[in-house]
Amino acid sequence: MKSSAGLLLSRIELDRASSIPLYRQLYLQIRKQILSGRLQGGVRLPSTRTLSKELELSRISILNAFDQLIAEGFLTSRTGAGTYVGHEWEGRGIDDEHPRQPPRLSDLSQSMLSLRSDHFRGVSYADWATGSPTSFLPSHSAYDAFPQSVWKRLLNRHLHKPTKAMLGYGELQGLLALREAIAEYVFDARGIDCSAEQVVIVSGAQQAFNLLGMLLLNPQDSFWMEDPGHIAARIALQAQGGQVVPLRIDEQGIDVRQGLALCPDARLVFTTPSRQHPLGVTMSYGRRQELIDWAAQNQSWIIEDDCDSEFRYNGRPLPALYAMDQWARVIYAGTFSKVLFPSLRLGYVILPNALVEPFCTLRAVMDRSPPTLLQAVTADFMREGHFLGHIRRMRALYQARQQALVEQLQKQLGTFFRITPVEAGMHLIAWLPAHLDDDALARELGQHGIHTYPLSDYCLEHVLPPALLIGFASTPEDQAQARVEALAQALDKMGYLQPAT
Amino acid sequence: MKSSAGLLLSRIELDRASSIPLYRQLYLQIRKQILSGRLQGGVRLPSTRTLSKELELSRISILNAFDQLIAEGFLTSRTGAGTYVGHEWEGRGIDDEHPRQPPRLSDLSQSMLSLRSDHFRGVSYADWATGSPTSFLPSHSAYDAFPQSVWKRLLNRHLHKPTKAMLGYGELQGLLALREAIAEYVFDARGIDCSAEQVVIVSGAQQAFNLLGMLLLNPQDSFWMEDPGHIAARIALQAQGGQVVPLRIDEQGIDVRQGLALCPDARLVFTTPSRQHPLGVTMSYGRRQELIDWAAQNQSWIIEDDCDSEFRYNGRPLPALYAMDQWARVIYAGTFSKVLFPSLRLGYVILPNALVEPFCTLRAVMDRSPPTLLQAVTADFMREGHFLGHIRRMRALYQARQQALVEQLQKQLGTFFRITPVEAGMHLIAWLPAHLDDDALARELGQHGIHTYPLSDYCLEHVLPPALLIGFASTPEDQAQARVEALAQALDKMGYLQPAT
Repeated sequence: MKSSAGLLLSRIELDRASSIPLYRQLYLQIRKQILSGRLQGGVRLPSTRTLSKELELSRISILNAFDQLIAEGFLTSRTGAGTYVGHEWEGRGIDDEHPRQPPRLSDLSQSMLSLRSDHFRGVSYADWATGSPTSFLPSHSAYDAFPQSVWKRLLNRHLHKPTKAMLGYGELQGLLALREAIAEYVFDARGIDCSAEQVVIVSGAQQAFNLLGMLLLNPQDSFWMEDPGHIAARIALQAQGGQVVPLRIDEQGIDVRQGLALCPDARLVFTTPSRQHPLGVTMSYGRRQELIDWAAQNQSWIIEDDCDSEFRYNGRPLPALYAMDQWARVIYAGTFSKVLFPSLRLGYVILPNALVEPFCTLRAVMDRSPPTLLQAVTADFMREGHFLGHIRRMRALYQARQQALVEQLQKQLGTFFRITPVEAGMHLIAWLPAHLDDDALARELGQHGIHTYPLSDYCLEHVLPPALLIGFASTPEDQAQARVEALAQALDKMGYLQPAT
Repeated sequence: MKSSAGLLLSRIELDRASSIPLYRQLYLQIRKQILSGRLQGGVRLPSTRTLSKELELSRISILNAFDQLIAEGFLTSRTGAGTYVGHEWEGRGIDDEHPRQPPRLSDLSQSMLSLRSDHFRGVSYADWATGSPTSFLPSHSAYDAFPQSVWKRLLNRHLHKPTKAMLGYGELQGLLALREAIAEYVFDARGIDCSAEQVVIVSGAQQAFNLLGMLLLNPQDSFWMEDPGHIAARIALQAQGGQVVPLRIDEQGIDVRQGLALCPDARLVFTTPSRQHPLGVTMSYGRRQELIDWAAQNQSWIIEDDCDSEFRYNGRPLPALYAMDQWARVIYAGTFSKVLFPSLRLGYVILPNALVEPFCTLRAVMDRSPPTLLQAVTADFMREGHFLGHIRRMRALYQARQQALVEQLQKQLGTFFRITPVEAGMHLIAWLPAHLDDDALARELGQHGIHTYPLSDYCLEHVLPPALLIGFASTPEDQAQARVEALAQALDKMGYLQPAT
């Protein structure tokens, strides 16, 4: 019978200053040694007397630790024969104590991950976590201007007592009150005439794209994608086996004729007609009608992502593609991440009737309805008029913030960037001198704590001049000057401004 | 030039009692007619004078409505020539006014949906929405016993002012404070020795299964599945192309030898070792070690679903499979849906280091981190000791509720059901007379507002005697008698109790 009293004793370190009781420290350390394989199954432990002497610890404390370890199956005690590590803990390899660093995704062999995960290589999410104060990241809204006190008041309404309605699984399709408020809102704001039955609440538009890809795409099915276009949406559809067919963006949006030339029988098309993402073009009526007619003839689906159409600063808003579609081929996706805040994790899809049940069935298995509490608050926020007021205020605020930022960028960096104000959305496109690599530039800026997105990240086949996406919604007017100065200094340090001087 | 003044006028109905201003009613009704194709592009509208006369409405109101419709591009006005429906609204088919009912999933042709969606046929989610008072649905916890006042207090802590930390996209991997609290909890409760870096917060375990299927399975890869076993997990893995290999459950859980005989090179195995779902068996140490050794040799993955291991009423708890695994092949999935409440939509996975980055990258594209507010509250709830106290209270409560329900079932229906108390979990298994069809019985009970799950729903190949899963956690002791009476009456009405009398 192996014995390792020495080994055990040498590794026990009791911290008498700690708030953790000594018996518990002993319990945790012995268990850790068993779990890590350092104390092997069958090993006999020193007697409580020995331990008590060596560790200067009362036998009661040691017995307490042993009892718990025995109860949990780590130790077994044989009367007369002492206490042993359970045999089920035999033959365990010993971990090295240093936690290994995860390898980079690209280092992982396919024997380890699915081929599908190839599509995710190089996706970076570092920016989201931190987001330094001088960040110009697009898609970040004006958190400082959110009506928190109203939100708090509405939230507390639903916290009085615990009910199954609020704590249980909730309506799979989403809270009816919220679906009704959304149906009313999109009718007024987007010309969409739908019933609450066609609305399904999701945890952000991205989840909708994922579920729609699963529902509608077979492996090898082709789909048309705007180029440049929505990166995460494209990957979500590719991850479901879809083959991407990139369609160039011109001043009218995508052109069905190009799609017909490249792949006439695509299963679906992903488009952002009201404000093309990322270029900001508005799709013309003619192109919209052509797209709908093609989808109707070809029994194809149109996913319309309408993410921040609320923020249009001039030019008249066009009704959604969904509103023009009399053939029930358009699926409309909206989100509250921009209009309210991203961490709310609420979005919605408006489906043709035929897709409602299949989508919900899929959704029932893939996830559940988002937290009822947050849906209820959002519904109240909409029904009681706070929502439209908030959009109006943000529209004015973002317009002012854009103006201030454009002014500063033109004043301080007008010779480096070519910038024109946008009619809608939350980011500018800053065109760079033709010889620069926007991707490298963005990465370098990131190291200086300045976050932007390079346009080339959004491009598939159709190469565009280098440019940076610069978000303006989260930069207060009075900080525009300082932030652009920081940007200019960084560019100068990096040696990009020499040619301009 | 077509004219449809008559048509238009005949369809306008103004409700003078309504709170909606008359000009807006007019605006909405005209727009609806354009969107629905009843008013075609190019059609000339009656003059404001005519409309004013016919509708008994001031010209100002009519002009207001027209101005808005013109601004939105529905109407165009040609000086001198009157007002027309925009030409882009030409040639639209006319909708029938009755919203179509969605067809059942099984009626939808594959030309419409992906083959993948086949897996979702017959999935029913009706029970969740309603859940009648006498419901015996498993997996519903004791909402009435949730410490709402504490929860409310903790929530309000984080509602003082709007910050990017609370409203922004948040840490992709999940709030660090929550991941730390979880790492500490699983070490104490489940013997799992991991760092917060290995914990990823998800919106419930089901999302984790979906993401893991995408990450680890290639189409046609085989996976071992407990039979009977977790329905939604199986479908999630099948939906990613996985081929299910059902393994029989005996008194020790699944048997690797059976898996080796059927499909030695399965890519992963899904298992519920601490309380087999749905049968409640605890996997023996020997089987656990065999499973881990197989996975290590075969470079396969083990998904350990530990969903309600907190609720063990007697018998000693075994450490998690993850705690025994020195080869980093086990992925541990936990959820707060049972321990706290389902609508919280929080769960977690504990990953081998090598999978952390790939999982997060996938997750970054498929969804974002759950609402930061709810993560922060849950972290506080755990760190400040409420969590363990709540588990202790619920354990005692559920044991009492189980006892009360078992007593009533045995007293009132002991000749019909064969019931034995369970050592863990939140549901009983009520075995039925061998000749009965549990699926039909459950459906029939559902029509009487009594919700249970039939065991056969969980079975793949290995047929078991008929039985019903009866949840006890949400039935207060003082309601056990009445609820079982309702159940007995329903069974009697349905004619099932005759043989017993």
